[in-house]
Amino acid sequence: MNIEQFVAQSLGEWRSMRSGHSLAFQQFEDVLSEITITQLDTDNKEIKEAIKNSSQPDDSSYISPFKMEWNAESDWEPDDPTAVSSGSCIIIPIPKDQTSGHLLRSVGYAESFPAESSYRFLNDGTFILETNYEQSIAQERIWFVSEHVRCRSSVLKTSEGSGILQSSFASEVRRIKV
Amino acid sequence: MNIEQFVAQSLGEWRSMRSGHSLAFQQFEDVLSEITITQLDTDNKEIKEAIKNSSQPDDSSYISPFKMEWNAESDWEPDDPTAVSSGSCIIIPIPKDQTSGHLLRSVGYAESFPAESSYRFLNDGTFILETNYEQSIAQERIWFVSEHVRCRSSVLKTSEGSGILQSSFASEVRRIKV
Repeated sequence: MNIEQFVAQSLGEWRSMRSGHSLAFQQFEDVLSEITITQLDTDNKEIKEAIKNSSQPDDSSYISPFKMEWNAESDWEPDDPTAVSSGSCIIIPIPKDQTSGHLLRSVGYAESFPAESSYRFLNDGTFILETNYEQSIAQERIWFVSEHVRCRSSVLKTSEGSGILQSSFASEVRRIKV
Repeated sequence: MNIEQFVAQSLGEWRSMRSGHSLAFQQFEDVLSEITITQLDTDNKEIKEAIKNSSQPDDSSYISPFKMEWNAESDWEPDDPTAVSSGSCIIIPIPKDQTSGHLLRSVGYAESFPAESSYRFLNDGTFILETNYEQSIAQERIWFVSEHVRCRSSVLKTSEGSGILQSSFASEVRRIKV
């Protein structure tokens, strides 16, 4: 698996069931959401901007940039069951070699500003993404269990020491392939 | 990582937060449980019995056999919040080489009779377990995110075709190392 194949396999509309585990408080959060992943034109001007604002060289060669949009319904606000959070970000892979590289995100996962991650593939094609935020480190893994079903887990640790703050797991089923 | 190290790292009492996702019905099940993993004496007579009842040769050389016990509280019975399911099984690894082998279980995960699985380790130490049941195939993965925190995911597919029935994810924190 390389990043180009991985992105190609991810394009489309996904229905996601996601469970968050707060380890300290032993609390669960279950969220249903719709995720749409679309390819970006490689000459999209936001891409150059994002690279310029990153630690990567301005002339970094990127591949398969894409946009991710999501609409989530959370169970954490029982008074308002229709509470929906939504958002979008653009993601730019900058390969180092066939199985690893960097990934720029216009909006980060754990904190709401641009994030820079490193990625690599395990020998079975599992995608591993590590992101250093200001106060935390996130490790995500994504693996396909069939053409239209993928699993995504994340673990959030404190930057200092080995404290695990929370974890999550999403089962994602592709409804529409684009 | 080899199976001996993996079992050694798993011994102790774990507090588990587990979320099950029923993909067809978009239903969540959140379960808190206690899991205890203890080493078995290698001359335990149940081991020989289990090997004899398996498809493995009677003189198979096994390593690090262990016992797993669990007590779970499920949220699937809202009328009885104290509903607890508990059980135990013995597990016998039969290595083929450093990174793969077979694993016998006295009680299966998805169906309640003895199960025979194949296991292998990915290059980052992730443990992958595949079990063929009569009507389904389970793939589990277990990986350590720190000495005392591990993640465990499972995906259950139909034996015929690629239908994914359900998935689950557990975040497990070791309370007591034995």
